[in-house]
Amino acid sequence: MTLTAASQSGGHAPLLVPPPLAFDSLADRARDECAVFGVFGTPDAAAHTALGLHALQHRGQEATGIVAHDGERFNAHRGLGHVGKVFSSKSRDVMESLSGHAAIGHNRYSTTGAPNPRNVQPLFAELDLGGVALAHNGNLTNALALRHELIGQGCIFQSTTDTEVILHLMARTSGRVVERLTAALKQVVGAYSLVVLTKQKLIGVRDPYGVRPLVLGRRGDAYLLASETVALDIIGADLVREIEPGEMVIITEDGLESRKPFFPVAPRPCLFEYIYFARPDSIMAGRSVYEVRKAIGRELAVECPADADVVIPVPDSGVPAAMGFAEGAGLPFELGIIRNHYVGRTFIEPTQEIRRLGVRLKHNANSAVIKGKRVVLIDDSIVRGTTSVKIIEMVREAGAAEVHVRVASPPIRHPCFYGIDTPDRSDLLAARMSEEGMANFIDADSLGFVSLDGLYRALGEPEGRDPAHPKFLDHYFTGEYPIRLVDEEAGSRARQQLTLLREAG
Amino acid sequence: MTLTAASQSGGHAPLLVPPPLAFDSLADRARDECAVFGVFGTPDAAAHTALGLHALQHRGQEATGIVAHDGERFNAHRGLGHVGKVFSSKSRDVMESLSGHAAIGHNRYSTTGAPNPRNVQPLFAELDLGGVALAHNGNLTNALALRHELIGQGCIFQSTTDTEVILHLMARTSGRVVERLTAALKQVVGAYSLVVLTKQKLIGVRDPYGVRPLVLGRRGDAYLLASETVALDIIGADLVREIEPGEMVIITEDGLESRKPFFPVAPRPCLFEYIYFARPDSIMAGRSVYEVRKAIGRELAVECPADADVVIPVPDSGVPAAMGFAEGAGLPFELGIIRNHYVGRTFIEPTQEIRRLGVRLKHNANSAVIKGKRVVLIDDSIVRGTTSVKIIEMVREAGAAEVHVRVASPPIRHPCFYGIDTPDRSDLLAARMSEEGMANFIDADSLGFVSLDGLYRALGEPEGRDPAHPKFLDHYFTGEYPIRLVDEEAGSRARQQLTLLREAG
Amino acid sequence: MTLTAASQSGGHAPLLVPPPLAFDSLADRARDECAVFGVFGTPDAAAHTALGLHALQHRGQEATGIVAHDGERFNAHRGLGHVGKVFSSKSRDVMESLSGHAAIGHNRYSTTGAPNPRNVQPLFAELDLGGVALAHNGNLTNALALRHELIGQGCIFQSTTDTEVILHLMARTSGRVVERLTAALKQVVGAYSLVVLTKQKLIGVRDPYGVRPLVLGRRGDAYLLASETVALDIIGADLVREIEPGEMVIITEDGLESRKPFFPVAPRPCLFEYIYFARPDSIMAGRSVYEVRKAIGRELAVECPADADVVIPVPDSGVPAAMGFAEGAGLPFELGIIRNHYVGRTFIEPTQEIRRLGVRLKHNANSAVIKGKRVVLIDDSIVRGTTSVKIIEMVREAGAAEVHVRVASPPIRHPCFYGIDTPDRSDLLAARMSEEGMANFIDADSLGFVSLDGLYRALGEPEGRDPAHPKFLDHYFTGEYPIRLVDEEAGSRARQQLTLLREAG
Amino acid sequence: MTLTAASQSGGHAPLLVPPPLAFDSLADRARDECAVFGVFGTPDAAAHTALGLHALQHRGQEATGIVAHDGERFNAHRGLGHVGKVFSSKSRDVMESLSGHAAIGHNRYSTTGAPNPRNVQPLFAELDLGGVALAHNGNLTNALALRHELIGQGCIFQSTTDTEVILHLMARTSGRVVERLTAALKQVVGAYSLVVLTKQKLIGVRDPYGVRPLVLGRRGDAYLLASETVALDIIGADLVREIEPGEMVIITEDGLESRKPFFPVAPRPCLFEYIYFARPDSIMAGRSVYEVRKAIGRELAVECPADADVVIPVPDSGVPAAMGFAEGAGLPFELGIIRNHYVGRTFIEPTQEIRRLGVRLKHNANSAVIKGKRVVLIDDSIVRGTTSVKIIEMVREAGAAEVHVRVASPPIRHPCFYGIDTPDRSDLLAARMSEEGMANFIDADSLGFVSLDGLYRALGEPEGRDPAHPKFLDHYFTGEYPIRLVDEEAGSRARQQLTLLREAG
Repeated sequence: MTLTAASQSGGHAPLLVPPPLAFDSLADRARDECAVFGVFGTPDAAAHTALGLHALQHRGQEATGIVAHDGERFNAHRGLGHVGKVFSSKSRDVMESLSGHAAIGHNRYSTTGAPNPRNVQPLFAELDLGGVALAHNGNLTNALALRHELIGQGCIFQSTTDTEVILHLMARTSGRVVERLTAALKQVVGAYSLVVLTKQKLIGVRDPYGVRPLVLGRRGDAYLLASETVALDIIGADLVREIEPGEMVIITEDGLESRKPFFPVAPRPCLFEYIYFARPDSIMAGRSVYEVRKAIGRELAVECPADADVVIPVPDSGVPAAMGFAEGAGLPFELGIIRNHYVGRTFIEPTQEIRRLGVRLKHNANSAVIKGKRVVLIDDSIVRGTTSVKIIEMVREAGAAEVHVRVASPPIRHPCFYGIDTPDRSDLLAARMSEEGMANFIDADSLGFVSLDGLYRALGEPEGRDPAHPKFLDHYFTGEYPIRLVDEEAGSRARQQLTLLREAG
Repeated sequence: MTLTAASQSGGHAPLLVPPPLAFDSLADRARDECAVFGVFGTPDAAAHTALGLHALQHRGQEATGIVAHDGERFNAHRGLGHVGKVFSSKSRDVMESLSGHAAIGHNRYSTTGAPNPRNVQPLFAELDLGGVALAHNGNLTNALALRHELIGQGCIFQSTTDTEVILHLMARTSGRVVERLTAALKQVVGAYSLVVLTKQKLIGVRDPYGVRPLVLGRRGDAYLLASETVALDIIGADLVREIEPGEMVIITEDGLESRKPFFPVAPRPCLFEYIYFARPDSIMAGRSVYEVRKAIGRELAVECPADADVVIPVPDSGVPAAMGFAEGAGLPFELGIIRNHYVGRTFIEPTQEIRRLGVRLKHNANSAVIKGKRVVLIDDSIVRGTTSVKIIEMVREAGAAEVHVRVASPPIRHPCFYGIDTPDRSDLLAARMSEEGMANFIDADSLGFVSLDGLYRALGEPEGRDPAHPKFLDHYFTGEYPIRLVDEEAGSRARQQLTLLREAG
Repeated sequence: MTLTAASQSGGHAPLLVPPPLAFDSLADRARDECAVFGVFGTPDAAAHTALGLHALQHRGQEATGIVAHDGERFNAHRGLGHVGKVFSSKSRDVMESLSGHAAIGHNRYSTTGAPNPRNVQPLFAELDLGGVALAHNGNLTNALALRHELIGQGCIFQSTTDTEVILHLMARTSGRVVERLTAALKQVVGAYSLVVLTKQKLIGVRDPYGVRPLVLGRRGDAYLLASETVALDIIGADLVREIEPGEMVIITEDGLESRKPFFPVAPRPCLFEYIYFARPDSIMAGRSVYEVRKAIGRELAVECPADADVVIPVPDSGVPAAMGFAEGAGLPFELGIIRNHYVGRTFIEPTQEIRRLGVRLKHNANSAVIKGKRVVLIDDSIVRGTTSVKIIEMVREAGAAEVHVRVASPPIRHPCFYGIDTPDRSDLLAARMSEEGMANFIDADSLGFVSLDGLYRALGEPEGRDPAHPKFLDHYFTGEYPIRLVDEEAGSRARQQLTLLREAG
Repeated sequence: MTLTAASQSGGHAPLLVPPPLAFDSLADRARDECAVFGVFGTPDAAAHTALGLHALQHRGQEATGIVAHDGERFNAHRGLGHVGKVFSSKSRDVMESLSGHAAIGHNRYSTTGAPNPRNVQPLFAELDLGGVALAHNGNLTNALALRHELIGQGCIFQSTTDTEVILHLMARTSGRVVERLTAALKQVVGAYSLVVLTKQKLIGVRDPYGVRPLVLGRRGDAYLLASETVALDIIGADLVREIEPGEMVIITEDGLESRKPFFPVAPRPCLFEYIYFARPDSIMAGRSVYEVRKAIGRELAVECPADADVVIPVPDSGVPAAMGFAEGAGLPFELGIIRNHYVGRTFIEPTQEIRRLGVRLKHNANSAVIKGKRVVLIDDSIVRGTTSVKIIEMVREAGAAEVHVRVASPPIRHPCFYGIDTPDRSDLLAARMSEEGMANFIDADSLGFVSLDGLYRALGEPEGRDPAHPKFLDHYFTGEYPIRLVDEEAGSRARQQLTLLREAG
C-alpha cells in the first residue's frame, strides 16, 4: 500500500549491481519524503510554522524543527518526534524563544533505527555574509559526489544529509545570498523544494522538473511557502499559486520577487504525491487529490472490473479510490476494514505464536460486511506485498467468499532516487514476478492494476501518457529516470561510507 | 459528537441542586468509560492482555495496567498513557516480569488534569485469603456513601476510585472469594462489568442491568473476558457469547462455572455504546455496531430528510451513519472533512489571533467536495455544541452553499451517572434551548435528530421504544434513571470532598 | 565502615534459623535508617522542610517526600531520589502547590533493587476524623504480627512499610487524634521517632528507649522537629532541646504541649548514631558527634597503640577518629586516601579484568604520604570486611611498609532490628572469625578495636559500660536486645511473604 | 575559594575596555578548564576511558564524551552531565557500541545556562584522509580571529568551541595527519593539551609553554594519555612521565614516537593547577599536589602568623594548606566547617527570607570546635569574595571569638585567558580594593595572603620567583601574559558575536 521501506540502492535497469552494504545502512536517512514550510511578515511566525508543520505531519514523523529570525539573531528548536511533541504546550519557553517575523520549518520522514540529531533540519550555517537556514524536501542524486569533492577541498560536514552540500557550495562562492544559492543549485542534480531563511529574506525554490510540490500562500501581509495547501488551511491563509518548476521566489519586506534562474525543462511532478503521499484535502496543480484518487478508482473499475458484492478499501489511503471504484462499478462501498488509530511504533513484540496467527495491531476486519461476500479490496499500491498478504488473510478469516484485489497504481518495478524511500528493486514484488505470480503470492482470487494511461487520464490527460513527453515522473512504473542518477552511476564511489562516525544512543 | 466533558454532578430533574464544588473537581476521575480484559489458561497471558487492551484503547487513554499471576505471586505493571507506551518494546523486562497463565487488564478514560497514579487499575489488595486484583468498567452510584461508612469503620482508602469500595467490602466479610465478591456486589448500586483475578480463578461479572458490555471468548484451552469483541479478534480468539446481565462466570483450571447471584431485573444495556463508544467492528448482543449506525442513518434520512447535494460525515464516528443516510436519501456520500490523525494533547497553544480564526488541528474541510454544494453534515451526537459551531463554520468557509445538520442520536438533555463522563446539565446544549435555538446557535440551515423510536428501530425493535419496558438505558434522552442515584440523592453528603490529599506533579 | 547491607534476618543467638527467603527480599525495605522533619507556624513550611531534609540527606537517599497542610487540604509530593532532585528548582509548581504553615517530611535509606513508590513516606490516610500524615525513623519489631492481625480484621495495606500499621491501628480506634496515636503506639513494639501532621497539629514522638534521635527547634514563632540538629542549622533555627525518650510533643497554634504517655524505661539511644550515622556537626544529647569521634580515636590510641609513622583515615567517616588517634599517639595525621565525591550509583560496570585490579571509583591512595611508611589506618567499623580488603590492598600498592588497622568501634557480631540495615549474622566478619583471623582476612599487619568500655568512656561514662544498666543500645556488640523481637521470635510466621504483589519497572 | 565564574573579558592592564556584551555571554563556554584522556592498545579502550574521565570529573562536570575506533569505524557517545550518568550501567548498549582498541575522551567544565550539545567534545571531522577525533584542554587566544578568517574562506563551523578551528585548519592543508596537525597548531596561539584519535594513531600534544598538564602512562601493552595521574591510578596504570611542553607523542601499533615540532620557549605551567584545580593525590611535574599545598600552608604560617586558638579549612580544597599552616604555626587543626556532599545544582530556590539568613546548602559550621575560639580560616584563594563573606558570617554565628583569614594564594587581580574561567577584572575583589578593604569587606579580623615568592618556594624554588625567568604561569597575580592575547587585543573584532544561532531547550 505504501512506499515505506528503509533502504534503497542499485536497482534500476542499467545497473543491477548488488546492494552496497555501507550505503544501505545510511541511505535510509539521506533519502526520504519530507515537508517544508516558511512564513515571512507576521509576528507569530514560529507559531504559524508549527501549525503548518502539524498539518504536514503525514510527510515526515521522525523529527521536526523550526528556525526563526528575530531581527537580531536566529533562534532554533529541533527535535526528534512529532510536531505536537517537539512543540508542545509544555515547552512554552521554546515558543517564546522563537520570536520574530520570519521562520522556516521542516518535518523529517520516519525511518527505523536511531536517527542522528545532527541531521534534523532546518540546517543552519554561518557564512561570512551572515546566517543561512535551509529546509529541503527531495533528494539530490549527486550529493555523494559533491560531498567527496568538497571534503577534498577541506570542508567539514556536520550531518549526513544530502542537503548540507548546498550550504557548503554557498559558503565557497562569493556574492550575495541569492546569487550564491543560485550558483549552488546549478551544481546539484536531483529533486528539491527548498525554503531558505536569511536575516532579511525568505526564499523558496523548486527544482526545474518540479518533482516535489511547493505552494505560495498569503495571509494578511504575510507570505507563506508550504509543501501542501493543507498547511495554509490550518492557519486560514489563502492559496496564491504553486511555485513553478524551476522558479525561485524571494520574499522581503518589499514584497515578492520571482526568478527563473535555471535552464528550462519540461516539468515532471511526482505521480506518487497523487497516489499516496499528499493529503486528500490538498490541492495540487489545481487538482483535488481526493478527486484524482476517486477518478483513479473509476478508471480501475472500467479497466479491471470484478464480479463481486461489495467494495472495501484498505484504510485510510485506499478510501477515495474505493469510493470511485464502487461508483464506477455500481457496487456498494463498505468499511470492511477498521483501522486502529492508536498504533505506536514501540508496542511490545508479540510472541511468535501470536505473530503467526496474524496480529492485528493496526487493522481489524469488520466481519459484518465481509462474511459470505465476494469482496473487491482496493489498495493504493503494492510494494513488497507483505502487507497485502496479511490483509487478505484477515479478510478471508472474516468470512469473505472471494477476494479480488484492485490496485490504484500500476505495478511498481523500479526504485525511486528523487526523495521517496523505496526498497531495493529485488524487494519490489512487481519486479520479482508476473501479475499472476503476484496474485498467487498474496492469495487473491484476482488481481488488477490501473494502467499507466488510466492513471494519466485520472489526472486529466484524456489521451493517457504521451511516451515522447510524459507529463509526470513515473519511473517507478517505467524505469525511465529523467534526472541523472550521478551517485548511482558512479558505482564504487557511491558505495563508500557516508560517514565514519556512528553516534550511540 | 462525544461525551467527553470532565465533570458532572447534580443535574437530573428531581434534584437541580447547584454543582458541589469539591465533588466537581474529582468526579472527573471517579466516573468514566473504561475497558477491561482478562485471560486464563495460556502461557502468554500478559501479552494477550496487552494486545486486548490495545484493541480497546478507544475506551480509555489516560492510563492502563496489567496484573498477572505466575502461580506463586502476582506481578503488576500500571502506568499513565497509552497501552503501546506503557507496554512498549522498550520495556522487555516488564513483559518478562508479567509471566504466568492468567492476567487481567484495564484501560482508563482520558480526562483533563494530572491523574493520580494510585487510581490506575487493576486495583490490588491482599486479603487474609490471599491476593485479589480487580478491574472495573462502569460507575457505582452509592460509592461515596459506602466509602464514608467504611472510613467510619476504620478502613483506609488508597485511591479515589469508586471501585476500591468493592475490595474493602470483600476484606470485611468472611468466606471464600466468590462468596465475598457476591456479598460485596450485593451492597453496591450502579453499573459494573468487572474482571477479578485471584490465585486460582478469573472471575467476570456484569451488573443485573447489563449496563456495560462484557463478552466471553475462547482460544484453544484459554478463556477470555473483554469489554468488546475486537479484543478477541486481535488475538485470533473466538466469541463464545456475551456475559449475561447479572451473571458471574468463574473460570478455573476445571473450566467455567456460571452463577446468577443477583435479583433478576429487566436488562438495560447502554445505548451510547452503539451510538458512539464501541468500535464499529464490534459485535454487541449479536448486533454489528457498524450496521446499527448505518441503520440509524437510514432512519434519520426518513425522519429528517434534507434537500441537499451531498452527505458528509464528521469523522470518524459519524461515517457509518452518514453512509446510511446517503443510502436512505439517495444522495452521494463524500469525505468532506479530513481528520488529522497525528493530534496530540499537548500541542502548543496557538495565539489568540489564530484561535479566533478557528484552528484546525484535528479537522480540515475538503473544499473540493463542499464548494457550492448544499451539504448534509452527519454527527453522532451533540453535547455542548461547541465543536459543532467550529465544524460548521469551517464547512461554510470552504464554500458550502447550505449546511443541514443531522444527528444520529436524540437530543441529550440529562447527564449520565453510570460510567459516561457527561458535562453538567447546564452545559448540555439540548437542555438549555429548543431545537430551533440549537440550529441558530450552531449556525445550521436546518437541524434534525433521530427520534428515540427511530433509534430503537435501528436496534431491531420495529415498534420503537416501549415506554413500559424500555429495552435500553436511555436516561440521557429521557431523564429516566432505572438504577438508584444514591450519592446524588444524598445531597450534602455527596458534596463532601472525596479526598483531602492532593498529590503534586 | 558502614552498615549498608541489603537484608537481614534470623541471626541472633537464640534463633540461628536459616534466613527465610521471602522475608529476605523485602526486609531491605522494611528496615532502614531514615530522617524525619516537621515544622509548624511559618508561611514557608514546605521550603523549610525541603532544606531540613537536604541537611539530613546522609540518613536516606532512596526517596523523599513532603506533606504540607494549607488550612483546607493536605498537599503532597513524594518521589524517588535525592531531595535536591525531587524538590528541584525545575519543579517550581511543586513547591507552590505545597503551600501552608505546617509540613512534615521524610528521607528514606538507599537500598538495592527497584523501590516501590507506594512506600515513599510521609504516609497519608484519611480517617473519619480527617487526614493524618506520618513519617517514621526506626523499625517496629512486631509489625508483621500486627499486619497479619489487621489483615485478618479486613484491613487493606497500601505499602509494605512497617509504619503503615500505626495508621491502621489509629483508624480502628475511636477518640481524638492524640488519643488514637497514643493507643496505636501502645500496641507497637520497636524503635520509632515519628512526626505526625493533622489539620491542626504537628506531633512528635520518640519511643520509650529513645533509640532514634529527635530534636525540637524554634525559629521565630515556628516550632521544628528534626532527626538531627544540622537540620535546624541550615534554616537558622535554634535548638530548644531533645525530645525525651517516651515523650510526645503536640504543637498547635496555642503552643507546645508535652506528654509522657508510655510506661517509663531506662533510655538506650543507639550507639551507632555516634559511631557512624549522625553528621559530625550534629549535637546529640548535648554531645558533639565530632568530639565523641575524636575521643574514640584517643581511647583507641591508648588501648591499641601502633608502632608507626603516620595515621590516615578511611574518608570521610574515619577522619575525626583518626585525628583523635594521631593526637593520642603523637603521630602525624595525613590524608592518605582521597575520596572522589562524584561517585554515582549507576556507573558502567567495569570489565572483569579491571575489577580484578581493584577499581577505585570511590577512593584513591595518596602515595606521597604513604610510600615507605608504616601506616595506621583508621576506619569507623568493620561489617563484612570486604571494603577493608580492597582499601588495604590499595594502600599496600601505594607503597606502605606496614598497615596497622584500628577500628573506632568494637567488633560487630549481631544484627540490628531497630532501624539499621545490617547483613545476616553469617555475613558479619566478626561473627565468623577471631580477631587474628580477621587481621589475616583483611591482610593487616595488626588489627585493633576500641573496647566497649572505651567507647562508653568516649561518650562521657568514665567507668565504662555498666552491665547492669547500660546507657546505650549496643546489641551489635553484645547480642543483648532490650526491646523484644516479636516478629523474629515468631519464626515461621515472620517468614511469610510481606506482599504477594511485585510491581514491575 | 575558586575560579568558577561564568564569563571573562577585557580586564588585563593594557586594555581596560568595558566588557563586550556579546562576547561575555558566550565566553563562558569557549574558555574553561577541562580534562582529556586517551588510550591505545587495549581491548577495553572505551571502558578505560570512562574510568579515567571519572577520576578527572573534578576538572569538568557539564558534559562528557568518548570516541573509540573499532578498526573499521569511529563510534561516539557524548552527552550532558557527569561521566557516571552519561556512561551509566543503564547504557550497556552504549559501552558495547564503543568497542575497539583505542579511544579518547573529554570532560567539560560546568557553567551556567543551557549548554549546546554540538559543543560536547571530542569533536569529530571527516577529512579526505579519514576521520579525526580531537579533545582539548586549554584555550586558544586567537580562535576568534582564525574563525572569522576561516568563515571568510568558506568554512562552516558546527560548534562555538575554539577547538574547532584546529580541525578546519587540518582540513585545509595537505599531507598526512601528523603533518597537518603540526601545521594547524603552528597557526594557533594559546594553551592546549590535546589528544587526537585517527584510524591508526593516538596523538598527544602539549603547547610550548606547557600551560595545561598531560601525562603519559602505561598498562601492559597499552599507552595512556591523561590530564592528571589520578586517571592512571584508577585503572592500575603506571606513570611513565609527563608529556613535555611543546612535545607531540604519536602512538601506533609500532610504539611511541616523540617529536618537538614547535619553536622552543621557557615552559610556564599554570600555578592554579597546584593551588586549586588538580586533585591532591595527583603528581604534577614530580611534585605531590598534596605536599605542595601543605608547603604553601607552612609558608603562609611563617609569612602571616596569627594569634589564634585553632586552624580550620574551608573544605575540601583548603584542607591540606590548613594542615600545613597548623603544623607551621603549632596550632591545632580542626574540621570547623562540614561540607554536605549531596549538593545538587537544581535545588529549590529558597525564599528571600531564608536566603537572607544565609542558607547553608553546602557548608555548616561545626560549632563544637569554633565556639569561643580565635579561628584561623584557611581558603585556597579569593576571587569575588562573596563566598568568603558568607563563610565568615557563618563561622561568627557559630560563636567564633575572632576570625583570621589566611589565603593560600596571592591576591588575584587579573583574569585568565588560557583556560580558566575567571570573572571580569571588575569583579575580582583584589582588583577592586586594598587588602585592608578586602578584610573589611569580608569582615575578617585580619587577612593575609601567601606571597608570590612564598608560593614559588612551596613549589621548590628556594629563591622564590625570578622576575627575569619566572618558572610558572602567574598572570592572575602579576598581570604578565606570556602568550599573546590576539583576540583580546583585536578589540572590536573580538566583540563580534561568536554565533548568530541560539538553540532553544
